[in-house]
Amino acid sequence: MSMPRSLAAEGIGSLLLSATVIGSGIMGERLAAGNLAVALLANTAATVAVLAVLIALFGPVSGAHLNPAISLVQALRRKMTWGAFLSYGIVQIVGCCAGAVLAHAMFGRALLESSLHARTGVSQWLAEAVATCGLLLVVMGHRRAEDAPWMVAGWIGAAYWFTASTAFANPAITLARSLSDSFAGIRPQDVPGFIVAQLIGALVGLAVSRQLFPSAPAQATPRRAPHECASDREPGTALQGCVRQRRP
Amino acid sequence: MSMPRSLAAEGIGSLLLSATVIGSGIMGERLAAGNLAVALLANTAATVAVLAVLIALFGPVSGAHLNPAISLVQALRRKMTWGAFLSYGIVQIVGCCAGAVLAHAMFGRALLESSLHARTGVSQWLAEAVATCGLLLVVMGHRRAEDAPWMVAGWIGAAYWFTASTAFANPAITLARSLSDSFAGIRPQDVPGFIVAQLIGALVGLAVSRQLFPSAPAQATPRRAPHECASDREPGTALQGCVRQRRP
Amino acid sequence: MSMPRSLAAEGIGSLLLSATVIGSGIMGERLAAGNLAVALLANTAATVAVLAVLIALFGPVSGAHLNPAISLVQALRRKMTWGAFLSYGIVQIVGCCAGAVLAHAMFGRALLESSLHARTGVSQWLAEAVATCGLLLVVMGHRRAEDAPWMVAGWIGAAYWFTASTAFANPAITLARSLSDSFAGIRPQDVPGFIVAQLIGALVGLAVSRQLFPSAPAQATPRRAPHECASDREPGTALQGCVRQRRP
Amino acid sequence: MSMPRSLAAEGIGSLLLSATVIGSGIMGERLAAGNLAVALLANTAATVAVLAVLIALFGPVSGAHLNPAISLVQALRRKMTWGAFLSYGIVQIVGCCAGAVLAHAMFGRALLESSLHARTGVSQWLAEAVATCGLLLVVMGHRRAEDAPWMVAGWIGAAYWFTASTAFANPAITLARSLSDSFAGIRPQDVPGFIVAQLIGALVGLAVSRQLFPSAPAQATPRRAPHECASDREPGTALQGCVRQRRP
Repeated sequence: MSMPRSLAAEGIGSLLLSATVIGSGIMGERLAAGNLAVALLANTAATVAVLAVLIALFGPVSGAHLNPAISLVQALRRKMTWGAFLSYGIVQIVGCCAGAVLAHAMFGRALLESSLHARTGVSQWLAEAVATCGLLLVVMGHRRAEDAPWMVAGWIGAAYWFTASTAFANPAITLARSLSDSFAGIRPQDVPGFIVAQLIGALVGLAVSRQLFPSAPAQATPRRAPHECASDREPGTALQGCVRQRRP
Repeated sequence: MSMPRSLAAEGIGSLLLSATVIGSGIMGERLAAGNLAVALLANTAATVAVLAVLIALFGPVSGAHLNPAISLVQALRRKMTWGAFLSYGIVQIVGCCAGAVLAHAMFGRALLESSLHARTGVSQWLAEAVATCGLLLVVMGHRRAEDAPWMVAGWIGAAYWFTASTAFANPAITLARSLSDSFAGIRPQDVPGFIVAQLIGALVGLAVSRQLFPSAPAQATPRRAPHECASDREPGTALQGCVRQRRP
Repeated sequence: MSMPRSLAAEGIGSLLLSATVIGSGIMGERLAAGNLAVALLANTAATVAVLAVLIALFGPVSGAHLNPAISLVQALRRKMTWGAFLSYGIVQIVGCCAGAVLAHAMFGRALLESSLHARTGVSQWLAEAVATCGLLLVVMGHRRAEDAPWMVAGWIGAAYWFTASTAFANPAITLARSLSDSFAGIRPQDVPGFIVAQLIGALVGLAVSRQLFPSAPAQATPRRAPHECASDREPGTALQGCVRQRRP
Repeated sequence: MSMPRSLAAEGIGSLLLSATVIGSGIMGERLAAGNLAVALLANTAATVAVLAVLIALFGPVSGAHLNPAISLVQALRRKMTWGAFLSYGIVQIVGCCAGAVLAHAMFGRALLESSLHARTGVSQWLAEAVATCGLLLVVMGHRRAEDAPWMVAGWIGAAYWFTASTAFANPAITLARSLSDSFAGIRPQDVPGFIVAQLIGALVGLAVSRQLFPSAPAQATPRRAPHECASDREPGTALQGCVRQRRP
């Protein structure tokens, strides 16, 4: 598993994820005749489907983080170097923003917009923290690599509905959504609050996971061949990227 | 598998399950523009997704009962001690009630409400008994531990629609729903009828399972290491908790 | 695998399947505020979910036919005796009719009704034949027993929408639906046309399967232990019941 | 795996896929009371379900391409001969057009129609290229044959919503849709633009896949028995057809 290939996978995956989130929101709102629940159902279904596909497709290549909050936790667990984290984060943000542009191009809108969708306040921040905390529990606690796609996607799909914020749960996606004045958008000034809440939730998720799923020793991972990453039975290995192990 | 960790898993799982059931009901009703079928579709989808995720995530830790009716049956089958049953039940109820509070906090409502949603009568009680009976058939009859998440979630999702009561099928969730005056709520005075019906359904399910799936000998389970619980091929082992075997 | 237990599994499975089909139709129509597409979406989702669960649950016990058309084909393939076919068929029909009564009881309706829902004509019969033919292709052509639940359920779910008849594809369910004057109902006088079309479709499906999936030799199945039925890799073995092999 | 059987599988699979896409569109539009988002949700659900079923069912027989763009890429990768590609393409197109006729017959419409549904312009072509490019990434990059059904179906389901064109992503289906003046239709004069965009997307997907998933050596595939095709762990093998290997 080479770093350029990993970064390409993270970038393409982030682009397609973001294009799906924003594009399906535009399509849903356009067709739903004012019934926002139907629009959000379509937005949820498309996001869940593509997220599961992308994790299964790019997981063996890059870990399929597609999310700086996940990469941060993997760096804190020493599953990837801080240099790799930085590269991942930049590629994820660029990929997600490019996804917004791609969605706008496909729907014939201005390539970049500034969202007017207000999403702020303590309730919304609590929701983002809960959504991201649960995401980290799933990422770190799942037992079989082949379960990661449906479990991550299932969690995000549920959180779209039960957290009041519709579960952005991803700083890169949050930035990208601020570039779209559509169903999935968020005002630029509301972005920092969401990202802080997401990072707090991720750190809480990391702490809880260490207590609940102790059989995944973060500091004692042996080196192994890349193809073993995908079949490892320790909790949380499917999405850890395996980048650090490849660099002596 | 330690008891404190099991109880933490049951508590967190119950909290997230309850927050999903109630939170997605609030979101669904808020967005559905009066079309209650759309609201219930969203409520169902979120519940099904989170239930499958939580069972896969916490099953290896605590059995992921998340439901006093299931714990009761496992105690009757001597798969867990009565002391463990009591601890599980308390944690499940506290977790579910905390989930109602969390949902209300995320949606900016009063933290505790008293539901005005009437759900009573013989038809409703019959529906709860059917829903819980079928749940126990699935819990005790599934053959592979990895099938428990989708089978339990699939049964509950179907029962949301075909039982007239929308399939609470869980005494702890029933109590928690009485604390929310929203789509998923139930009047406090209607709670006892639901719980009695659920327990009758669970006992019927236990009796039927013993006839239909006899290859799971409840009294002759050998001791085994915790990780074996998850790969056991006897019917119904995935959700039995494995707690009793760990305590000589 | 004993015959009484197989018949009990077929009966309970047929009851729950029929109660789901009819009950979720009642619930969907009641809540959907006149949008029949939303009602059919709910009806489809509940049917798909319960069908997959029931096949996974009862497949190892009875083959989980839940459908006289499937039992007929298995008898023609000499996978079960004609006596077993007769017993299966009776239990399936009684179970499905009891499911209609159960659904009505849960929704507080008259226990037995006579449907006024007209479903007749060449287009409808063609649709039933296509739906049942495809069902038999899936039953006989799937390669792994663990795929039968989602493949059968997925086919029926798609056929609910793309065949104009909403894919009854099951003579026992057709009879039961004639007992319910609700969303899922069918006029008694339209039942024979549906059943004839279903049986023709099943026979066409059998003939096509024999050409397309020849590695499943219908006449040369070796005897084997019941638990092997579930892991057999020959096409179509998951739903064949394994009854015949048990009787020397 | 014989060529006549492979062609029969491709033909029947293409017919059922096309009948589902067009038939569920007719049903959705008929029932949705003007809410096009609900109609597209139903259209998506039916397509996703049948696509997964057909790939699982016919994948071991013919590779279950059901799509000339996939067959073209497999021919370019030398996974099938150009003669086989030609036969596959003809059968796919005939099958898809027959599926349109079947759908119309089931819904009691004229057997052949000419669509008036305008779908053209750079945005639409970009959408088709993105949808087909992603489809090829999934086809060539998935690691386990048993994942191909849900990953291909999941991608198409998401792309129905996030690409503005509703992701035809298949030249044979595009031709068939031009024969139906219904929800899923496309004007005959808009077909060439869609097909060119799809082929460009497929070629881009092939090029990207070769960089991202290099462990699938297109030119060095050893000969093997047909049943090995389904369990091969190289990326992209599930849908390659295995036809070429069978002919010395």
